[in-house]
Amino acid sequence: MSRRLWTLIERGFQPGKQRHYETLFTIGNGYFGTRASFEEGLEGDSPATLIHGIYNHATGTLVPDLVVAPNWLPINLTIDGTPFQLITKTNDIMRPPQGYVLGYERSLALDTGVLHREVLFRAASGAIVRLIFERFASLHNPHIAAQRLRIIAVDGSPQIGVEAALHGDVSNHGVAHWLPEMTAYAEGDQIGLEAKTSQSGYVVGMASMVCGVNTTPSESSGMRPTLRAAFKLAADEERTIEKFTAIFTSRDVTEPLETALDAVTTAQQRGYDSLLTDHQAEWAKYWATSDIVIEGDDECQLALRFATYHVLIAAPRHDENVSIGAKTLSGLGYKGHVFWDTELFTLPPLTFTQPTLARNLLMYRYHRLAGARKKARENGYEGALFPWESTDTGDETTPKWSDPQPDGSRIRIWTGDSEQHISTDIAYAVWHYWQWTHDHTFLTRYGAELILDTAVFWGSRVEAKNGRFEISQQIGPDEYHENIDNSVFTNRMVVWHLETALRLLDWLAVNASGDYARLVASLGLTDVRLAHWHDIIARMYIPFDDARQIHVQFPGFFDMEYVPVPNYTPRTTSVQAILGHVRSIQTQVIKQADVVMLMALLGDAVGSREVMLNNWHTYYPRTDHGSSLSPAVHAWVAARLGLIDDAYDMFYHAVHIDLQDNKGNVHDGMHAAACGGVLQALLFGFCGLSLDDDGRLTIDPQLPEHWRRVKFNVYYRGELHTFDARNPVLDTPIA
Amino acid sequence: MSRRLWTLIERGFQPGKQRHYETLFTIGNGYFGTRASFEEGLEGDSPATLIHGIYNHATGTLVPDLVVAPNWLPINLTIDGTPFQLITKTNDIMRPPQGYVLGYERSLALDTGVLHREVLFRAASGAIVRLIFERFASLHNPHIAAQRLRIIAVDGSPQIGVEAALHGDVSNHGVAHWLPEMTAYAEGDQIGLEAKTSQSGYVVGMASMVCGVNTTPSESSGMRPTLRAAFKLAADEERTIEKFTAIFTSRDVTEPLETALDAVTTAQQRGYDSLLTDHQAEWAKYWATSDIVIEGDDECQLALRFATYHVLIAAPRHDENVSIGAKTLSGLGYKGHVFWDTELFTLPPLTFTQPTLARNLLMYRYHRLAGARKKARENGYEGALFPWESTDTGDETTPKWSDPQPDGSRIRIWTGDSEQHISTDIAYAVWHYWQWTHDHTFLTRYGAELILDTAVFWGSRVEAKNGRFEISQQIGPDEYHENIDNSVFTNRMVVWHLETALRLLDWLAVNASGDYARLVASLGLTDVRLAHWHDIIARMYIPFDDARQIHVQFPGFFDMEYVPVPNYTPRTTSVQAILGHVRSIQTQVIKQADVVMLMALLGDAVGSREVMLNNWHTYYPRTDHGSSLSPAVHAWVAARLGLIDDAYDMFYHAVHIDLQDNKGNVHDGMHAAACGGVLQALLFGFCGLSLDDDGRLTIDPQLPEHWRRVKFNVYYRGELHTFDARNPVLDTPIA
Repeated sequence: MSRRLWTLIERGFQPGKQRHYETLFTIGNGYFGTRASFEEGLEGDSPATLIHGIYNHATGTLVPDLVVAPNWLPINLTIDGTPFQLITKTNDIMRPPQGYVLGYERSLALDTGVLHREVLFRAASGAIVRLIFERFASLHNPHIAAQRLRIIAVDGSPQIGVEAALHGDVSNHGVAHWLPEMTAYAEGDQIGLEAKTSQSGYVVGMASMVCGVNTTPSESSGMRPTLRAAFKLAADEERTIEKFTAIFTSRDVTEPLETALDAVTTAQQRGYDSLLTDHQAEWAKYWATSDIVIEGDDECQLALRFATYHVLIAAPRHDENVSIGAKTLSGLGYKGHVFWDTELFTLPPLTFTQPTLARNLLMYRYHRLAGARKKARENGYEGALFPWESTDTGDETTPKWSDPQPDGSRIRIWTGDSEQHISTDIAYAVWHYWQWTHDHTFLTRYGAELILDTAVFWGSRVEAKNGRFEISQQIGPDEYHENIDNSVFTNRMVVWHLETALRLLDWLAVNASGDYARLVASLGLTDVRLAHWHDIIARMYIPFDDARQIHVQFPGFFDMEYVPVPNYTPRTTSVQAILGHVRSIQTQVIKQADVVMLMALLGDAVGSREVMLNNWHTYYPRTDHGSSLSPAVHAWVAARLGLIDDAYDMFYHAVHIDLQDNKGNVHDGMHAAACGGVLQALLFGFCGLSLDDDGRLTIDPQLPEHWRRVKFNVYYRGELHTFDARNPVLDTPIA
Repeated sequence: MSRRLWTLIERGFQPGKQRHYETLFTIGNGYFGTRASFEEGLEGDSPATLIHGIYNHATGTLVPDLVVAPNWLPINLTIDGTPFQLITKTNDIMRPPQGYVLGYERSLALDTGVLHREVLFRAASGAIVRLIFERFASLHNPHIAAQRLRIIAVDGSPQIGVEAALHGDVSNHGVAHWLPEMTAYAEGDQIGLEAKTSQSGYVVGMASMVCGVNTTPSESSGMRPTLRAAFKLAADEERTIEKFTAIFTSRDVTEPLETALDAVTTAQQRGYDSLLTDHQAEWAKYWATSDIVIEGDDECQLALRFATYHVLIAAPRHDENVSIGAKTLSGLGYKGHVFWDTELFTLPPLTFTQPTLARNLLMYRYHRLAGARKKARENGYEGALFPWESTDTGDETTPKWSDPQPDGSRIRIWTGDSEQHISTDIAYAVWHYWQWTHDHTFLTRYGAELILDTAVFWGSRVEAKNGRFEISQQIGPDEYHENIDNSVFTNRMVVWHLETALRLLDWLAVNASGDYARLVASLGLTDVRLAHWHDIIARMYIPFDDARQIHVQFPGFFDMEYVPVPNYTPRTTSVQAILGHVRSIQTQVIKQADVVMLMALLGDAVGSREVMLNNWHTYYPRTDHGSSLSPAVHAWVAARLGLIDDAYDMFYHAVHIDLQDNKGNVHDGMHAAACGGVLQALLFGFCGLSLDDDGRLTIDPQLPEHWRRVKFNVYYRGELHTFDARNPVLDTPIA
């Protein structure tokens, strides 16, 4: 196996990209994620360990945050008394001579999730050491993290000082979530820390041990229990130090710190190599089904593995009560909240490769039906209306107001009120999962209720007006246009939703009559209600321009100012940001795939090929891809329309959202939806993976000319299939 | 043809890499090269047009420079009065509001040498324009450069101001080479500039015209004759402006400015598209033979094309009196001087693909035999001793002293005195060229004299000592160790040189008896002299360690301090720089392939496979690759030894010397030898291209496992052969 296409490399430290790489190189195991901040810390860093489900709503803030847990990374070194820091040589007279870095390289092995860093460092004394850091978050035992440090005396024989610590003094960008009364433990060869969130009352316990040197515990540790060691290296001598950390929360066990202290003892006894072997074996299982091979495009090959890696480390493995936030566990963006991104972007590729992970994510929604019902009820509707932003409670947690703008004002955020298509998105994901897996147990016990009770919501939500059904005050995927009436995306997806609900009921009646009866009774699926659904399906208003033979994003859309988006090229910000909020909402500039998203989800059911092409040529040049969700969906749809050049452009754009930080905000975390999106663009778009009308698995590859081969695995109704599509141009002579 | 692997792209402007990209994106045509500075200029830029052969030795400097010619790039714009500059948005209160850049992308088409830049710019007025710049240095007519600018009013209808100029106020890092009395011409629709170098008396004439707008000439232009224009763009309007420039020197014509004015008129009449078509057709001819295809490694594929591009734009096409400097025409490093880099790195790949260019380069040396004879004579020797650094005159132009060090001291540079292997390197290149081309005319008229008179030098240079022949006070390829006695590289290459001279004489006697007689007479190739050569061959001291079965770089080498170079990883500077000059010369740290270089050049003739491997394992871990010449040679030799992983590591290192600036000095210009070196590593190393003992063409591919196919062309004795090697692993299933 060529390491080249499995390894993300940072050659040389670039201070301007510090937080970008902290995000890219995040490690995780579906239980926690840890940004790639340095062991020794560095000014400007943004270390964060995020543990699934640990939310807290701090006083004075609008909504809960996914909480930055105590930092388990710290290992501080001194070399002949010089603190090791990633300072490059400087003539800054304000800095006393303090040693400097002669070389730096970092890499993340995507196949095993091991982060590796090498630094050549010269101390003020003149001694030179080579430092090799390694860390991983065990996929085998998700409560264990391990670090290894090799120190090599390259020149001289320096005195080395080591401080390995746990840091409890952490915050979310200055917002404190932990009660200041922490338990900090430093005794014998162990340190530990236990902390409790201020509002939600979650407890996190961490414990660490160090091998390879004799350590002394700190006496008075405050929030930073520490193990210290000191030794001298002979010339050319190498020393290996290992630090093990165990992490538990009150969501897992009743005594997190006690459990962590026990677990870290066991881990340390097993040893680094043994833990690593188990960890790698778990990763090998993941990749055995999840890897997608592209030959003929090294850049996209690596990018696809990178996207898959980040989906896999974010997906909860053993927990039905958490889901993947918009920024995974790799950053604080969107406060760790869960959006439709999960169901329509990140989850579907898992259905094919890791169906149990997909199921976990759907179960997260099932367990939050109470919150969705409450939201519907509070808004005067029936059934279940899922929150636009979701956390642990299932309550709506979308902030009502933005952070302050440069002029101090705040902008009202309407998505929590009006972006109601989320309920249908979840229903879509349930249906999709069931279609591909035929996981009837899931469907009958959980999934059906999700589809049906959200259908009940829509039955109560639609408005009979003008001799048809309409839906007012919505936000579709294009969030630039808020509180519009009759979003074609929403209206059409509601039709699909009700059709699917009825189809599901028919299936249940035949195949699971007990569940059928239970659901009909508990959800009140009376004949009157079902007749109403039929009526909505028949008479829902689907905005369409007969003259132009296109779907209309919403009535009035084309009356607004036309802005030729392609002329705004090249740009590093959205056209919205260029035009300003006030003007852009009065233009036809679209944030992201909206009608195009509808075409992605419903395919041929949206209209004839002519209409689909018309829609494409209308909306593609009006879209500024201000959302990271947009390019991959465009790639998917363009590929299906046979517009392979456009499809590749959009695909290329999508795979670089994180890798090249082409939205400039990767420091806030990975774009989970973009990761899932590129996998979908590949599978559904270029490869044409689908089920035909009879539910049979089909592919219809339309590959970029330079892709010589695509190979991937798909679980279809319990069986694993391997597709290996060779491009017909394979044997074309090189021009 | 996929554009992807033919295009070098800069996404977003990175101020810290400004000069790096100026070098990478240099355009040229073998007559002149122009760094990729912006039309509008920018603080920190380093614009330079360098014309082959235009050297000048300014008063107060140690040696001549290749002279920065007047700048033909300037096109300055105002948008509603805001000067267009590549300023990104800033809160710097010292800068008044002045518009800023919303987006930037630049790309170089390697297949056609067209540099393309797109910028989205907002003026202080709020108007937004899209600017698309394009430029090329005509390969069809090397005296012509063309620029095109498209301005699109994206938002608003701005007033545009244009100033197209020639700038004569240029210097080499502050060193003035042009006499201040220039002719600056601005009349009608033309501007022109004529300038003369202060010492050498070369005259350069440039003339420009602008199409697409009505221009007014500047009245008082000083050294900056200018054409001005102004116009208003309607909303969404696009305007195309073209600037044509002609460049002549007194090396070409007697009236450079007059000729340029005529030529630019003709060019402007032909028009941009027509000039571009001719230019592209010329490039297509180059690539038809010069392209090397690698499948399975996109990064190396692009890098190889990039290397080939830079060799091709630097190689003189119509001139036997110039050669390729160490930094090509892309930067001021090494002052444009010519080293052994040309003969042993850049030239050989041209022999296979563009033999007339290779011949031109050899002719440069032939025409400088007088200088080489002078140098030999002045040092008390016979024959021809070529200068270590060469310019137009053929005199030694190596500076005797370095630039001042941080402490103000200067270091004595000995290479001009002691790196005498240059003469053999040239002989090697002549022999290699002849072996592959069988260009007998060249050999008999010019090449033989080069080989023989440098052999005469060595006959007079070797020292009879200790019952053998020795050579003292040399610098081999490893320049860290100066003025050592009995460099194994030098001594062994001298043996090869004398053997070759004798073999050549035998061939001439049979095949070109007239030339034979002429050369024997004119060079004094008496029987006594030839007997002396035989004696040297038989009794030259070749330092060898019988116990270890290795060649010894020079006697005493292994008595010095051993430094484990691989421990100095990662690093961004040489180990020499880390240890300091004083200490490093007393260690076994080697700057570059030395014994390994000998193995590259002489192959199996150096020793048994066992000795070759011993040499490799001895010297590879002692080499810090402080020279950009080193990695490619290591790749070549390692590939031949079957050490494919090492070979690929070194190859990868070599191809990124310029692209990733991993020596941090690309702002001074491309590393010509590294470019040629990677081509040689590919051809001689991985592909095993060679001539067998009977002069038959053979290949013996040993490819990195992930390379699926290598395809290249080779001229062999007048016939073009195409090799298309598919890796045996091609059909291995994907693991």
